[in-house]
Parts: sequence; structure tokens; C-alpha cells
Amino acid sequence: MSKGRVCLAYSGGLDTSTILVWLISEGYTVVCFLADVGQEEDWAAVEKKALSLGAERMIIDNLQEEFVEKVIHRAIQCNAIYEDRYLLGTSLARPIIAKAQVKAAIENNCDFVSHGCTGKGGRADLLRYAAEKKIPVSSTPKEPWSKDDNLVHCSYEAGILEDPDHTPPKELWTRTVDPLDAPNEPTDFSIHFEAGIPVKVILAGQETTGSVAVFKLLNKIGHDNGVGRIDIVENRFIGLKSRGCYDTPGLTIARLAHLDLEGLVLDGRVRELRDQFVTHSWSRLLYNGLYFSPEREFLDNSILFSSQNTTGVVRLRAYKGHVYVLGRSSNASNLYSEEAASMDSLEGFSPQDTTGFIAIQAIRLKKYGEQRDKDGNSLTQS
Amino acid sequence: MSKGRVCLAYSGGLDTSTILVWLISEGYTVVCFLADVGQEEDWAAVEKKALSLGAERMIIDNLQEEFVEKVIHRAIQCNAIYEDRYLLGTSLARPIIAKAQVKAAIENNCDFVSHGCTGKGGRADLLRYAAEKKIPVSSTPKEPWSKDDNLVHCSYEAGILEDPDHTPPKELWTRTVDPLDAPNEPTDFSIHFEAGIPVKVILAGQETTGSVAVFKLLNKIGHDNGVGRIDIVENRFIGLKSRGCYDTPGLTIARLAHLDLEGLVLDGRVRELRDQFVTHSWSRLLYNGLYFSPEREFLDNSILFSSQNTTGVVRLRAYKGHVYVLGRSSNASNLYSEEAASMDSLEGFSPQDTTGFIAIQAIRLKKYGEQRDKDGNSLTQS
Amino acid sequence: MSKGRVCLAYSGGLDTSTILVWLISEGYTVVCFLADVGQEEDWAAVEKKALSLGAERMIIDNLQEEFVEKVIHRAIQCNAIYEDRYLLGTSLARPIIAKAQVKAAIENNCDFVSHGCTGKGGRADLLRYAAEKKIPVSSTPKEPWSKDDNLVHCSYEAGILEDPDHTPPKELWTRTVDPLDAPNEPTDFSIHFEAGIPVKVILAGQETTGSVAVFKLLNKIGHDNGVGRIDIVENRFIGLKSRGCYDTPGLTIARLAHLDLEGLVLDGRVRELRDQFVTHSWSRLLYNGLYFSPEREFLDNSILFSSQNTTGVVRLRAYKGHVYVLGRSSNASNLYSEEAASMDSLEGFSPQDTTGFIAIQAIRLKKYGEQRDKDGNSLTQS
Amino acid sequence: MSKGRVCLAYSGGLDTSTILVWLISEGYTVVCFLADVGQEEDWAAVEKKALSLGAERMIIDNLQEEFVEKVIHRAIQCNAIYEDRYLLGTSLARPIIAKAQVKAAIENNCDFVSHGCTGKGGRADLLRYAAEKKIPVSSTPKEPWSKDDNLVHCSYEAGILEDPDHTPPKELWTRTVDPLDAPNEPTDFSIHFEAGIPVKVILAGQETTGSVAVFKLLNKIGHDNGVGRIDIVENRFIGLKSRGCYDTPGLTIARLAHLDLEGLVLDGRVRELRDQFVTHSWSRLLYNGLYFSPEREFLDNSILFSSQNTTGVVRLRAYKGHVYVLGRSSNASNLYSEEAASMDSLEGFSPQDTTGFIAIQAIRLKKYGEQRDKDGNSLTQS
Repeated sequence: MSKGRVCLAYSGGLDTSTILVWLISEGYTVVCFLADVGQEEDWAAVEKKALSLGAERMIIDNLQEEFVEKVIHRAIQCNAIYEDRYLLGTSLARPIIAKAQVKAAIENNCDFVSHGCTGKGGRADLLRYAAEKKIPVSSTPKEPWSKDDNLVHCSYEAGILEDPDHTPPKELWTRTVDPLDAPNEPTDFSIHFEAGIPVKVILAGQETTGSVAVFKLLNKIGHDNGVGRIDIVENRFIGLKSRGCYDTPGLTIARLAHLDLEGLVLDGRVRELRDQFVTHSWSRLLYNGLYFSPEREFLDNSILFSSQNTTGVVRLRAYKGHVYVLGRSSNASNLYSEEAASMDSLEGFSPQDTTGFIAIQAIRLKKYGEQRDKDGNSLTQS
Repeated sequence: MSKGRVCLAYSGGLDTSTILVWLISEGYTVVCFLADVGQEEDWAAVEKKALSLGAERMIIDNLQEEFVEKVIHRAIQCNAIYEDRYLLGTSLARPIIAKAQVKAAIENNCDFVSHGCTGKGGRADLLRYAAEKKIPVSSTPKEPWSKDDNLVHCSYEAGILEDPDHTPPKELWTRTVDPLDAPNEPTDFSIHFEAGIPVKVILAGQETTGSVAVFKLLNKIGHDNGVGRIDIVENRFIGLKSRGCYDTPGLTIARLAHLDLEGLVLDGRVRELRDQFVTHSWSRLLYNGLYFSPEREFLDNSILFSSQNTTGVVRLRAYKGHVYVLGRSSNASNLYSEEAASMDSLEGFSPQDTTGFIAIQAIRLKKYGEQRDKDGNSLTQS
Repeated sequence: MSKGRVCLAYSGGLDTSTILVWLISEGYTVVCFLADVGQEEDWAAVEKKALSLGAERMIIDNLQEEFVEKVIHRAIQCNAIYEDRYLLGTSLARPIIAKAQVKAAIENNCDFVSHGCTGKGGRADLLRYAAEKKIPVSSTPKEPWSKDDNLVHCSYEAGILEDPDHTPPKELWTRTVDPLDAPNEPTDFSIHFEAGIPVKVILAGQETTGSVAVFKLLNKIGHDNGVGRIDIVENRFIGLKSRGCYDTPGLTIARLAHLDLEGLVLDGRVRELRDQFVTHSWSRLLYNGLYFSPEREFLDNSILFSSQNTTGVVRLRAYKGHVYVLGRSSNASNLYSEEAASMDSLEGFSPQDTTGFIAIQAIRLKKYGEQRDKDGNSLTQS
Repeated sequence: MSKGRVCLAYSGGLDTSTILVWLISEGYTVVCFLADVGQEEDWAAVEKKALSLGAERMIIDNLQEEFVEKVIHRAIQCNAIYEDRYLLGTSLARPIIAKAQVKAAIENNCDFVSHGCTGKGGRADLLRYAAEKKIPVSSTPKEPWSKDDNLVHCSYEAGILEDPDHTPPKELWTRTVDPLDAPNEPTDFSIHFEAGIPVKVILAGQETTGSVAVFKLLNKIGHDNGVGRIDIVENRFIGLKSRGCYDTPGLTIARLAHLDLEGLVLDGRVRELRDQFVTHSWSRLLYNGLYFSPEREFLDNSILFSSQNTTGVVRLRAYKGHVYVLGRSSNASNLYSEEAASMDSLEGFSPQDTTGFIAIQAIRLKKYGEQRDKDGNSLTQS
């Protein structure tokens, strides 16, 4: 008799195949679950392997649209970034996967959910068990690093990358061509945003719409031009430092374009508050796995509010590893005014006003300077 | 009899030549002052022009070392950036120039300091007055934008750039080659940091040291490889939006390298506090012209403290508009440990600990999920 | 012929009576406007004086409900406070007054709005002009300080209070009895909140509801028990320091009660974000007169979101200058659980989990301690 | 043969007596350690009990001066507070105790340190073991709550207090008299600060100096006048909400006085940064037990810098549960100027300047208002 039903997150790899075998050997009935969040995968092979190892069923759930619309769009809208460089690819996908697995577990009357992560230091035991149970191992030789792949990025870490001074080999990167091998001709294109969301891309006169299609096209542009590679040492939630390499073509482009459009249409002070608090906190809590939390809801509410007028077009150029803004425009906002910005115009502006503005700023600073003089520590000597 | 002595910030351009003539015509004695903060300039020509227009004296003050060591190094140490993209080139130089001008005024017994900025909307009057007084105008035709140049960057704004969708022409950029024209071979080099300051660059086996020389070499590497161009719409202190283009080769490189080294050697929580408060606030106050303020001193104190252990080497590659980190190392810090980071190791780590860590995090989150269930708004439906 | 129609903010005092006379003498037609934001006023006398001095019309607009519901409730919901002590009484009323004056101006076909503030340093001129024009001055001798009064507080500043070491005299305070004269028996009462808003007060078995009535009752309880006096030196927007005394009975009580209820029902991390970012920024921008701004709208949106579950009852005691929380309860939130909080219970909690939690926290801290040891600066010696 | 030497934090209570007996029964040699951080204790009785139960030695270490000078002074200098109300009494003492225990362990050649906290849910087992081993229990009946006592405060929690609506009984409070029983005459006194540290108190003409003596006198003033009681529900580090009552007489007074003096002498913008960043973060990390961390060092560095000029005198009144500021003065700072603050003076100020200041602020806000009009959502209708 079964000890119960388990919904197992199953990828077809060694780790999850091993726990699948182990769970069955322990007397559980196992329903395998695999989320399609845009990773490269031989879906049929995974299903075949799961069933051959004894799974009752293999569920493959296409979550790409939900991933883009529920999480990636929020990331774009707040210019999410962790420690100035990491665009959070893995962290963005995890909550979508986790929720779908729990739903699958409920729908399949499972008593448990399970993952197959080996855990730090457990690899030797894993390999021993897998060999003993004759669990089939991929015939392609294992790369000396580990990967995590989804619509947003591919991450590379561990193995030879644990030496932070070891440059990643050319063949490591899977989602971007080497900038040195990218085309000699730049790719020019434009992204149309509505309320902070990229809704259309125009490339070579062709329009692409639809949340997933737009994001995939940005991935392709980034891929072909080698855009979005980073190599960093980051601070993990648990307090360890860890080295990771990531190639994130489409989100690198979308983030830059959104950031640029905000320059044109978002009030400066709202932006400052959003940057210092919302962007910082949202990025950090996603990184720390706290998506399903009241604070994420609280921040999402601010993100949506601040994005209301982020509507317009950004023209861009991708070329050999980098992406450049060529120009931007918006009919939705009056905040930028060529007339007001012009040095030759006096629209709504009196030169005398700046005298007053500066004089008022100076009230406090003069006192500071006087105190420094009195203390024998004059600012002109500093 | 003289109405008094004026120390005038004089560049040899039309605006400052005009005010020089006007001040003299009003009965002032004028001492001209020009700071050398690394801009391109025909110094002898400026001096000759000042004297020919009636200045009593032309002072040219080389402030490059002070500029690098007092301000640029602070910017590097805190990864200063304004609105996610602008590296503050103009804002960094201004306080150094202003202080030197005030010192020059004191040393030359001046009663006043003066600048020659025309001010918004005043250009037509300026041109009329200059023509009337036959003030010599440069024979090279005026570019349809204005520039500001120093060791850190050259900025371009106004004129045709006031249309935010007008792509800057190829010939605008003076401090970087066009990425499309940059060499086909990448440039690999390394930067050595001590306490957050770049103290040595090694390029093609050659060592360069000295604060100004190091910074100039980074400028050259950036220049030759087209690194550091940005084109943005930014929020000015006075509440106007303004479009600016900047090429900032060396500081773009130095900032990235420093940021990267911090990943390896700076405690994650100190970094978070520094990023959210110090970096944000320092950048903003520099942008707003508040260098000589108690809050800048307060923040500098934090910057120096947080930089104490930022010592190590970052290996980099510049190539056609972008700069890449190839690796980093440090003997000064134990915070990154290959052993601790390794998935195969259990150094100082029990897998059971993570269970507890997650369980404690979950206390709060479970209550949140239960409340959502109770409210008929289950997280699995969200 | 009239130079135009002016809507003048008119209080009946010397300053506004003087400008009223001056505007008429300059040829303007003047419509006087007085907002009733809960201040003590002889409304009929003000109207009579305005008309006798030549105003075309005297508009008195009761804004109390709008004041409470649009602004005071937001202040309560975010526990607004400036520089740790000032509850912003004057700043809260100003936007409501300003908007109503502008509406009155539009409705009365005015071309201008005007105020009568004398401005720093202009008092001598004012008095001279008023004497010359025989503008009636109140027969009660002028107190040696200035006041601003509304539903929230009365402020006292200037005059003898400009010496920050001069203790305000007993007769200064108008909205609170002297704590030394307050009743010997405490006043116990309870406040019921819904979504962060005080909707009911129960005092001596009597229920009071209605936004204005509730707030006035809290004012009365505070008044009678001497609650809500502060005396501070604060930092003005323009950079000057200024000394102000404020008595703020009702809001002091409502803020404490709301704060207390949040302890019971608001998620800790949402609260932290709200405190550090929303409360701080909202208070500061109200103080600086920036109510009508996109950032205030942005923050209001967060305040309303974070207040959704702040529903419950707080029992309080006011006594001789202070207010104490006696207890609080809520049916709306499951976040506090007696069972979970109990030391005797293990609900949802394994003691082993804390070991893991602490061990994970310690990963980073151990490295820090080891580095300190290595540097000869052991933490046990610190 | 001993299994090793243990340094046990020993208080003489049931929990620590039980573990002492258990450790010995398990074969360990035990050195008992008790920190004197100002709590009320019968020191001789504790020592006698420890030795009678088999401890090798009882170490009692007077840490009061270190506690005041290393931690309490930092708390005062940054106005430390957690969740707007809790002054962190327990959290402030813990690091000092922990460090001293580790030092004692090293000096006594111990192999282990130990505490005797029972842990959540373990009380029943504890009582069973203690009865079995005949460990002497205090003859005074146990109060239905638990306490933690040190120089700063006494905390009360658990037991009957787990119901957050249960008002603490009168006899609970040990460090303050009931405000209803406090003297009818107020106590007036003054505190002298140097660099943010209270260095002298003058009460009834008597001067008290010395870090511990000053703090104890403030405790006495607070005690006698019933100052410093709070009753809150707070958010624990682990995510649980917990109800605590605290009486904190001296620190409540010292914090208010310091805060007040800062109004007079600390630059407003430095204060804003310190408040939002240092005070918030320092308080939170102390609460979370992270004193021995690089971020605490980082923040301490800022606290000391910002306190440099906080020198002056604050005059105060304590009366029946509350403390009032009567006035403040400083010779150390020029930031407050009666002349500058005066409405009758124009020192360093032109009324026209404010026009310019306001006009510049309005550039951004006018655009916002115009956009709202265009959107059919006029601010006058809001």
C-alpha cells in the first residue's frame, strides 16, 4: 500500500531521477511535475524517462505567459536589479513554478510536494545511490558548472566557477553569442511601452506584439548581438558569497529601455522614492525567495501606481555586447517640454527665481561655512 | 578709480569674454581664473585673450590631482551614479573649481567672484552686446549643442539635443571612438585597488601608478574602445527634465571594476546600507551642487569606513563599447571562500540548518497564507 | 474701473485687514475667503469687519469634514510625524484651505488669489501702514507670540519663544489644560478603527461616531487631561531652525492608538517598509508644503494599501499629560496568535529550527569574527 | 574524568540551576558566570546556590560602566527606538553580557559556553526534571509573567500578558511608580550633553557626573515620577508577534533630551539621513541580536560622526508619567540663531528670495497640475 502521493518537481536530470526512484522505493506514489518557464528542454524525453522510472504521471505545465505577465513585467516596471548587476532571472521564475506545483499537487490529490535538490555537500552520496540503482545518466559529459535556464536567463555557477578569478570559458554561455563573434552590423529596433509594459517591438519594419512573443524577440535580438552577460560575486540570503555568471539578453534590453522612458515621463521625485525603496526592496525580496509575502504585495501596489504613465517609444541599437538608446518619445506625458528645457526659452521661468532658489539653499550652508571658519577649519582649506 | 576687484571664472569663450568686457566697462578690475580639471584647452590662447580684453591677470590652476583624489576617488568608492546612469562628471568637478576660484580671489585681494553663465533665455542679449563691443568670436562654426569637458567626461546638451528623440550625430562624441569604429581586438587589462582606490593599472605588461596617470590611462582604454557613452533624460534639481549625452570612458570602467571587487570583499549587509543610503544620497547631493555641506561630510565619513577592505585586483576586457569583468581576486578579505561556496563542501554548514532557517522564515509567511485562505483569496489562485 | 477681482484669504486679523485695505486702495475688487478648519473664531465678527473694510463678499467655508477625512485620516494611517515629535497640525490644514480658496476664486470669477502674510522683516512697515489707514486693531493686547489654530492643534511661535531656552508661560497653551491642573482621576476610553481610521470612540459607556465628532471627542479627552503638548526646535524647509510649541490633543491620542493597533495586526516587514519610506516621506513632504504633488499621491496609494487590515479596538487611559495603552484586540487579523506567542506552546514551531536559523545567520558573522581575529582586533577585545 | 569545562551563564533561577545540575550529572565541570548589568539581584545568594549545586566557581562581573559607555551612549546618540516605541533595553545589554561570558570562558580554560534558556514549549520537561533532582525553587510564588532586568529597563512578558488585551496589573511594574501615585510636585532638572553623551545632571542644585551615576540618577527621576512605561505588541526577528511591557525610566528621559538638543544643534539634512538610515538600522540590528557585525561597526562610525557637535543643556520636567522639555541651549553650535529665526529680522534673508524658491519648486508642480487638468482630473476637484 502506498505511503501517500507525492508531487515531485522533476526535470529528467540525475538529481530528480534519483529522488524519484528513492521515493518509489520507499513506497510513495509519485506524480512528476515540470514547469515550462521557457527553458530549453526535450519535453518528450523527460516524460518518457519519468514514466520509465515508475512515475504515475508526468505533468508538463506551460507557464510562460504567466511568468512574463505576473513577474517579468513587474521586474521591468521597477527596473529590478540586485546588487547593481544581477537581473534576478532564477528568482523571478521560482514563485511561478512553486505555485503551479502546489496547484498540480492539489489537483492530483497529492499528500506531499517534493524537490530533488541534492543540497550542499551531498553530491557524493547521490552519485553512489544513483550508480547502485542503475539510474540512467545523460551520455553527454557533464559540464564543469551547473546551470539554471528559463525565459529570462541562463545562470552558471559552481564547479570551475568557484574560483572567482577563473574566466568563464567561451562555450559556457548559451543564451548569447560571444560579443567578439556578433554581427558587424548593429541591430536597430524600437520598443513600445504602455503603463511600463513592453507591448510591441518594431524590428526591420516588422511589428511584434503579445507578451511572450515580445519578450522572446528581445531575447533573440540580445542573443544575436551578445547583449546581457554578467559575471559577479553576489551575497546570498544565507550570508555566503557566491560567484555566478548569467546571460540575460531580453531583460537587459527591456530594463534599459524602460529606465530610459521613465527619464522622459516619470516625475523625478516619485522616481527617487520608487528607486530607493520599491526597486531596492522588491529586488531583494525576490532574491531572497519572499515573493509570496505581504511586503511583495505592498510593493507591487506601488509599482503599478508609479507605472501608470510610462507610455511611449524607445529606439535602441544592439551591437556587439552592448545596447544603446537612440531616442525616446511619448504622447502620454507633458513632463518633458522641449520649450521648457530650451536654454533659449524663458517659458514659465524667471532668471531671478534661480537667485532666490540659490539664496534660500544657502541659508543653511552659509551657517555651516561660518561654523567651519569659527572652528579654524575653513572650507577653502578643506 | 576701480569699483573693486573681481575674480572671474574665465574660459576664453564668448560668454565669459563678454562679461569680462562688461565688468571692465563698468569700472571693475578683473583677475581671470581658469581651473585645469583635465579639459582640452589651448591654455596660452585663453591667457592671451584674457589679457588682450583687459584682464589684470590670468590665473590657470592645475587641479587635476586634487580633483582625482578628493572627489573622483570618493565617487569610485561609493559607485556614485545618478538616476541609474549618469556618472556625475560635471557635478564632480564643480566643487573643486569653485573652491580654487575662491582661494584665488582671496589671494588676489578680490572683492567679488563672478561667473559668466548667460542664463536661460539670455542668449539673444548676449550676442547683441558681444557684436556691439566687437568681442572676438571663435572662427570655428559653433556646434549645435553645448559642451562641458573635464577629466571625467564630456557632456553634450541643448541645441538639437533638446528633441529627446534626435539621435546624437556621430561627430558629437569627443571622448570615445564610435563603438562601430573601435578595434576588432579587445583590450585586456587589470586594475589594482587599495581601500577602494584604483592605485595601479596593468596593460600589456606595463604598470601605471599615480592617481592622475591611472585615471588617464583608464580614460584612454575607454576612449579607444568606445566605452562609456550614455544618452539620457534626467531630472534637474530645479524640477525640469533635461536631455544630456555624456561620454565617460575611465570612470565607467573604474566604477564597474570597483563594484565588482566589492562583490568579493565587502560584507553584504554593509553594502546594502551603503547602496541604499550613502550611494544614493551622495550622488544626489553632488548632482544638486551641495558638495560643501555637512551631509556630504557625513557621507564621506561612511564611504571611507566602508572602503577599508576594498583591496584586490579586477581583470577586465574592453571591447567595442562595453567592458567585461574577466575575474577578480583579493588577499585582503576572507569573506569569499571557495571552500565555503563550494556545493561539494560542508565547511561550517549543516544541511539541517537550512531547514531551520526556512522554517523560521515561514512562521510569518504561513500566517499570511492562512489569512489569505480565510479571506477567500488563496495564494494558489493569485 | 476695477483692476480685477481678488480672492483674499482673510482672517479678520491685522495682517489680512491691512492687505484688504491696500488691495481696495489699489483698485481691486476683493472677495474675502475664510476656511473653517476647526479653529476658534468669531465668524460673524470677521464677516462684519471684512464688509466694513470694503470687501465685496465674505465667504466662510466649513472644511472640517474634508480636513478630517482627506488629510487627518491619512496622517493617522501612516503615524505621520516630523523630526520625531511634530504632528504637522498646520501643514495638514494648509492644502485643504488652499484648494478651497482656489475653488472660491474660480466660482467668484476672481482673477487673482492673495494672502496677507507680512513676511519676514516686514512688520514695522505693516504697522505704520495700518496706523495711517486707521485699520481697527483688536482691543485685546497682543500676546508676545503668534498662533495658528485648527482642528488638529494650536501652534505658538515667534516673539518671546525665539529664545529656545525660554519656557512657554502657562497661559500660552489654549488647547490643553496644564497637566498639573488636570483631573486626579484618569479618563479611560476606547477607539475603534476600521482600515486604519478611527470610526468610533467609547467613553463612559457612550458611543461617538462620525469622522468629525470622533476627532473632536479625542480633542476633548486630550484637552481635559493635558495630553499633546510639545516644545521643539525644528528644521524648516528653507534651512532655518525655528522654535515652535504645539498642543495637539486628539491627534496625539489617535496616533498612539493607531500605532498600537498596527503592532497587533500589521505584518512586521510591511510596517518596516511603510515606516522607513512612506511615513518618513509623507510627513516631510506635508511639512514642506508639497501636498499637491505626484509623490504625495504615490505615497497615499501605499498608505491606503497598508491600512486595509488595521481594524480593531484600542483601550486607552489619559491622565495628567500622558496617554497609556491598556490593551488592544482585533477580529480582523490572525497575525497575532496567543497560542503561537506562548512560551508554553510549540504551535508551528520546532526548537531545532531556531538552531538552524541562528547557524545560518552565523555563517556571515563567523567570517567577520575570524577576519577580526586575523587583523589582531578580536571581538572579545572590542 | 571531566567531559570538559563549561562556562555557564547562571542567574540562580530555576532554568539555569537545572542545567547546572544536568551538566554536572553529564560529567562536565562548570564555571558559573553572572554579568552585573545593573539588575536587582542578591549576588551572595546566587553565588552560594551555584557552589552548593556543584559549580567549580561563580564569577560575577560588573559590566555597568561598559554597558553604559559602549552601548547605552550609542543608543542615546542615535535616539534608538524599535517600531516607534521600544527602547531596546534587553537588546542593549545582551552583547555586553555575551562578550564578557566568552572572555570568562577563555580565562577559565573552558571548552564550551552554555546558557540555560528552556526554549519554547520545554517548560513541562524542565519542571519534571527539577522536581526529580530536588533542585531548590524560590519560595516566593512565581509571578504570572517573566521578567528581564538591567540598568536600562525591566521587561515583562508571557503568562497573563500573552492576551494582548489584558492590562498589566499595578504590581507588575518594578522600575517606575504608578503615575497615579507619583508626587504632585513636578521634578525639574537639566542634562548636560557633550558630543551626544549625557555628562552631567543638575537636580535641585546638585551636580551629578560620571557615566553610570548620571544614568542611575535619570533612572531615579524617571522611577519616582512614573516615566517610561510602555505596553506594546512587537514584531520579533523570527516573524512572530509578541506582547511586551517595559519600564525604562532613565533612557526615556535621556532619549527625549538628546532628541531635543539635536533640534537646536544638528544640521537638518544630516539629521534626516541619520534618522532614516542610521537610527532605523542600528535599532533594528540591535533588536535582532546583530551587535557583533560589520554593519553595526559601520553605523557606529556614523553615529559618532553625527554627534560631534551635540553639546549643550536641556532643561526638563518630569511629572506623573511624562517628561517635558522646558528649554535648551548650546554654546557649541551656531545653527540656531535667534536673529535669523526672528520674524522681525531680515538677517541674511531677502523676502524676494522666497518668491524665487517657491517659483522654482513650482516648475515641476505646475506641470503636474496641468497634466491633471488635461486628464480631466483637476487638482481643485481632488
